[in-house]
Amino acid sequence: MHEIRVGEDLRGKNEEIARENRELLKKHGVFAINLMSAPGAGKTSLLVRTIPLLKEKFAVGVIEGDLQTSRDAERVAELGVKVHQIETGGVCHLDASMVHSALHAFDLEGVDLLFFENVGNLVCPAEFDLGEDRRVMLLSITEGDDKPKKYPLMFMESQLMILNKIDLAEFVDFDMEKAIGEARDLNSVLDVIRISCKTGDGVDEWVEWIERAVKAGG
Amino acid sequence: MHEIRVGEDLRGKNEEIARENRELLKKHGVFAINLMSAPGAGKTSLLVRTIPLLKEKFAVGVIEGDLQTSRDAERVAELGVKVHQIETGGVCHLDASMVHSALHAFDLEGVDLLFFENVGNLVCPAEFDLGEDRRVMLLSITEGDDKPKKYPLMFMESQLMILNKIDLAEFVDFDMEKAIGEARDLNSVLDVIRISCKTGDGVDEWVEWIERAVKAGG
Repeated sequence: MHEIRVGEDLRGKNEEIARENRELLKKHGVFAINLMSAPGAGKTSLLVRTIPLLKEKFAVGVIEGDLQTSRDAERVAELGVKVHQIETGGVCHLDASMVHSALHAFDLEGVDLLFFENVGNLVCPAEFDLGEDRRVMLLSITEGDDKPKKYPLMFMESQLMILNKIDLAEFVDFDMEKAIGEARDLNSVLDVIRISCKTGDGVDEWVEWIERAVKAGG
Repeated sequence: MHEIRVGEDLRGKNEEIARENRELLKKHGVFAINLMSAPGAGKTSLLVRTIPLLKEKFAVGVIEGDLQTSRDAERVAELGVKVHQIETGGVCHLDASMVHSALHAFDLEGVDLLFFENVGNLVCPAEFDLGEDRRVMLLSITEGDDKPKKYPLMFMESQLMILNKIDLAEFVDFDMEKAIGEARDLNSVLDVIRISCKTGDGVDEWVEWIERAVKAGG
């Protein structure tokens, strides 16, 4: 019981800081997207594919969350956008407090679209509001079509599911209709986009989704 | 600071219960393997491939850890071995206490090789000793060759890394030598086996690894 109460205290604190982040972002006119997935589903590859297209329309910034190493941050920085690295030091998710510190280190005046690339984990990141406007999750089709039922919270908390690595569709047993159907049983308004970061298929649709989201607002 | 102290208390408690698990397993002559990986790397598929071969040599049991659903347990139970399901209720890893309860629900007299299939997560499961004799991690080559540096603890804490889904090698950019080299920079004595649960390649080698481990003992 003790563990649970501690967890609830920390969760309450997180909600409070997430609200502050949301206000800070709103004040500076920044729209924020929290990108989440299991390890290796393609979050960084998606950013690398998308940022060159987004840069024509938005001043893009990225906050990179990693347990250790800055290699994702370096890959993104090469695209000429602002990047701030959060090393969680072994913690398996970003929380609002980590993002809060990063926002203060960022010059928010020069940014209008900000990504939080979360730690690769299909469980805990879904529990922590960071103050973002939208939550987007990636599911690589190599992970199997049973993931919505097995990791439901992530699918419930997201507004968009990106099915990535569709270039591998003919080599893996992944039932798209089943995965989408079971994800929508959990979250009936979940948007879905099929993407290959390798071939570029679906990337335009994702850029359009972002433009519509920014227009609709937080 | 408060969070860290709470974490250390819980960790100390976990070590204590893990020791009790280890003694209980030893008393009953059970050799235990903790299977860990990111979601969808193929832990259950590996068990489904391996158990028919292992059943000729061992009395096999499986403790299945899942956030929710019993579909992995059902897949394994179809093979005619003892299965006990742990639903963690959203917790992102197995801990020694969950396994302790499961061991008491299991008839250990009838088992000599026991698998703990952990929750799909490349981070937290590595932090929790369950009382196992060996830790085995799977890395699907679809997840990318940068995972050892990004998720180091899992690679440091395991005795064997299984590189799974090698049937997809020609379709993904995965540098085997780099991944193995970087994993061994973290853990110089890490064993490595390349497997395809789809084609069966490497499965014999994995069965031999288990036989040697059981012979060597806990």
